[in-house]
Amino acid sequence: MKDDLSSRLCEAVDAAFDAQVAFLSELTAHPSTRGNEQSAQDFMARELTARGLDVDRWQIDVAEIQHLPGFSPVLGPYDDAVNVVGTRRARTQQGRSLILNGHIDVVPEGPLEMWDSPPYQPRVEDGWLYGRGGGDMKAGLASNLFALDALAACGLAPAGDVHFQSVVEEECTGNGALACLARGYTADAALIPEPFSETLVTAQLGVLWFQVHLKGLPTHVAYAGTGSNAIEAAIPLMQALHEMEHRWNAPDRRTTDYAHMDHALNLNIGKIQGGDWTSSVPAWCVFDVRMGLFPGQSIDAAKAEIEAVILDAARDNAFLRNSLPEIVYHGFHAEGYALSQDSSARAARAIDALDTAHRTATGAALERQAITATTDARFFGLYADTPALVYGPRAEAIHGFNERVELESMRRVTKATALFIADWCGVEPR
Amino acid sequence: MKDDLSSRLCEAVDAAFDAQVAFLSELTAHPSTRGNEQSAQDFMARELTARGLDVDRWQIDVAEIQHLPGFSPVLGPYDDAVNVVGTRRARTQQGRSLILNGHIDVVPEGPLEMWDSPPYQPRVEDGWLYGRGGGDMKAGLASNLFALDALAACGLAPAGDVHFQSVVEEECTGNGALACLARGYTADAALIPEPFSETLVTAQLGVLWFQVHLKGLPTHVAYAGTGSNAIEAAIPLMQALHEMEHRWNAPDRRTTDYAHMDHALNLNIGKIQGGDWTSSVPAWCVFDVRMGLFPGQSIDAAKAEIEAVILDAARDNAFLRNSLPEIVYHGFHAEGYALSQDSSARAARAIDALDTAHRTATGAALERQAITATTDARFFGLYADTPALVYGPRAEAIHGFNERVELESMRRVTKATALFIADWCGVEPR
Repeated sequence: MKDDLSSRLCEAVDAAFDAQVAFLSELTAHPSTRGNEQSAQDFMARELTARGLDVDRWQIDVAEIQHLPGFSPVLGPYDDAVNVVGTRRARTQQGRSLILNGHIDVVPEGPLEMWDSPPYQPRVEDGWLYGRGGGDMKAGLASNLFALDALAACGLAPAGDVHFQSVVEEECTGNGALACLARGYTADAALIPEPFSETLVTAQLGVLWFQVHLKGLPTHVAYAGTGSNAIEAAIPLMQALHEMEHRWNAPDRRTTDYAHMDHALNLNIGKIQGGDWTSSVPAWCVFDVRMGLFPGQSIDAAKAEIEAVILDAARDNAFLRNSLPEIVYHGFHAEGYALSQDSSARAARAIDALDTAHRTATGAALERQAITATTDARFFGLYADTPALVYGPRAEAIHGFNERVELESMRRVTKATALFIADWCGVEPR
Repeated sequence: MKDDLSSRLCEAVDAAFDAQVAFLSELTAHPSTRGNEQSAQDFMARELTARGLDVDRWQIDVAEIQHLPGFSPVLGPYDDAVNVVGTRRARTQQGRSLILNGHIDVVPEGPLEMWDSPPYQPRVEDGWLYGRGGGDMKAGLASNLFALDALAACGLAPAGDVHFQSVVEEECTGNGALACLARGYTADAALIPEPFSETLVTAQLGVLWFQVHLKGLPTHVAYAGTGSNAIEAAIPLMQALHEMEHRWNAPDRRTTDYAHMDHALNLNIGKIQGGDWTSSVPAWCVFDVRMGLFPGQSIDAAKAEIEAVILDAARDNAFLRNSLPEIVYHGFHAEGYALSQDSSARAARAIDALDTAHRTATGAALERQAITATTDARFFGLYADTPALVYGPRAEAIHGFNERVELESMRRVTKATALFIADWCGVEPR
């Protein structure tokens, strides 16, 4: 790419940056937790339409995706799960096509009193924007959009088709990205600006979610017997699961990208609920677990081992032996994915383009990292033979209180994204 | 009492027993969990009014009772807490007065699928009535009421004032019974037909409820560190509390009534809730605890020790050390009470009257037991110098699924109660 174009694109990003921060702030004000994404998706659809993209807005239909590889089981219907894709078709079709993907869903904000300021009233302080979802990953949706704007401001458009995706369900299943795939959206590469501090993600873990349901016979606490408490009966099961976690992290189980990490696979007891009266011995308890998997690790084998671990531990328990736990799956059945294992020329070319773009935008080399979470990249990489570059701004406390994203980082990523688009897709006059 | 009167009272109970079972069934159909007692109290008020009692129906006012000994702290207002007392004043005032007390509130029914039949659609099978609250303690409200009916059927009324109390809040604070006391309802004795299998309760434990609130800084599970999980941080606190429970049950801590019991004091983890997203390390967890106390054990000292145990355990925990748990009290601050320690002539006379009544009604001696729960008896015994006799029918699975009460037992208790009233209060023509 000519230096002149690079400079013009970066200047265009700078020129629109105040507007980009305002956009991010408005987007972050939408409390788009799972099931509540509609207003945020409406906002995205309006913004895409205003920019002349063809907007496709549709409700996910489980029947259309449940047979596909990568599908994760869900409870209940998808009445409220709406994807938005805006497409700009290249006039010349001289370049490569690209998917710019981001997710609109955010995780719950938790107790409000633990936030320094309301999670859906974004504020900017000392160069950071605070708010639930600002980092994970509305800043990425903003950088994707304003990167395209930068091309437009230079009188240019990508010379290959671009699909701008704003998807739901990234935080629990990935079925939003899968539904895009099922609807026919493919491209030569995908870029997903998840907030990993301007590094390129070379590998991501698989993630499995499951619920453990414990039931038994309750009674008045006056007649409490040892071991009959469904809440406390959960404890040895948690311990057994952590022992499994330890085994799975053993050096001989690690894949190349994770060989240096002692504890890449985290087992998280993320939710618990049990009992309904303080003076009744609780007869039921449900806890929710998230477990990481290495790339290549089979979901089915993982489930089988998890079930065996739980049932073996239950059989050792006087209370649970007579009322074995039920294991329910809803949520992630996500396989791991390693861009590093994609030896195609296309992947190499995409990585090279991003490397150059990043270097030009930031003056620094593009660092790589294997992450201990999942992203929607797996759908492109595993099920559509499409290299998926996860590369986004620096954020902190994602999923936590006072989540924040660094605005200068978003600026750099936006510039790098604009440069990447111009290189990967090429440009044509608008 | 003349044998003839005894026989006539027992026959009157028999004659009305079908109606009594119908009454119990209708009462049990009201789902009078805490906050939802109104329709059941309306029903009770109608039944008392129909029998010519003066009915006092009032909303509990925390301001009127919170300074009184025996008050238990509550969260939120008492907008929905209504007591009902029906009074029959004796014309002759020749006898002793009596409070017939029972509670209308029932504990939550739990998951419906664990009941063989719906908990608020009572059914009779093989001599048992099934339904939430049928045993604890609507059968007792029925035996109190139909015992009075038996006197009426014989053309008699008690020769001392009788206050028939249907109170709320027994299952969580006792503030319903306390409010009756504050309103001026006193008598020479009280009878509370809690379902303890036709035994006389000679002692009951104190009960303390507390909540433990754990908070911390959550994060994406990708960054989970050992010990930062608020749900799992609860586990060592539970263990420390169980160690305290063990110490409190030591032989040298037991009072006379409980000297033979290895484990009278039960610590129950009755409820738990924590986290809100499977892939977020949970930043908060709340669990609810019920702990028993021996009669004479100080509530304040118990609270101080509990707090020390929890905070000491928290300081041993890397996560909790920096964010110490908060201990919140709402619910029982109930002291223990031992009728066995009441050396008054009045108590002896009351026990003797019940003993005789029971023997006449059942043909068997009245057995005694110290129970490992609390009842509203403490308000009469500890704070009103009134011997409180806890004596009621046989029930099973109280606080559990398929709670049931034995109807023939309710019949015997109703007869014994009628005989006791006639003896204790004396009789006068209606």
